[in-house]
Amino acid sequence: MTNKIGILAMGHGSSLPHNKEVITKIANMIAEKYPDTVVRIGFMNMNNPTMAEGLEAFENTGVSSIIAVPLFLAHGVHTTEDIPQILGISRENRKRTVKINGNDVTMVYAEPLGPDPVIADLAYRRAIEALE
Amino acid sequence: MTNKIGILAMGHGSSLPHNKEVITKIANMIAEKYPDTVVRIGFMNMNNPTMAEGLEAFENTGVSSIIAVPLFLAHGVHTTEDIPQILGISRENRKRTVKINGNDVTMVYAEPLGPDPVIADLAYRRAIEALE
Repeated sequence: MTNKIGILAMGHGSSLPHNKEVITKIANMIAEKYPDTVVRIGFMNMNNPTMAEGLEAFENTGVSSIIAVPLFLAHGVHTTEDIPQILGISRENRKRTVKINGNDVTMVYAEPLGPDPVIADLAYRRAIEALE
Repeated sequence: MTNKIGILAMGHGSSLPHNKEVITKIANMIAEKYPDTVVRIGFMNMNNPTMAEGLEAFENTGVSSIIAVPLFLAHGVHTTEDIPQILGISRENRKRTVKINGNDVTMVYAEPLGPDPVIADLAYRRAIEALE
């Protein structure tokens, strides 16, 4: 049995290309930096793969669990209602079993990015860059 | 003449309280960590203060310039159309002068957070926390 963790990096989706580009780059960064993870992406709307397609993309990867991480800054209607509905879970019961290659794999729904100091530092950096 | 920088931390706004809470906490973190800044918040919709009210809140702070930082993960319709329209600027010409206490103060529009490695690390951390 492997200990590979699957991370489903979930994005909002957009009619413009930027959201998909940013989510894809973040997913690639996670995969490169944390080699015990298998990272897939999925979008709530307007882009492919969808979140359901993102889950299917863990077939044949050997992951023993999947964490669905909403790449959103804060909770909102999307993270408390729309995405749980898509994933078939709830905020109260944030786990369920999904079938991957016919095997039961636990999927857990993570918290959004939230008000972390690294976000504050990054926002400050973006501010200073804009002055240059 | 002061060298205080004003940072307008701009959030999406939400019918739920989380977005305002997260934006407010990030703004407070920036203000505490970078004491040469004056940080104000403003929301695109659904919450107060609005972005216009956030700009007015730099009155009597002595800032010599204001950087309007969109606390959004990626560019999208909001950051390329809606917010520039609210701020009276464009992505091409991301600066304009605003009147603060009757004085001309330069306002610059910054980039959103983007696909930075610190976001990838934070998303990974949220994933691991969800497993615990």
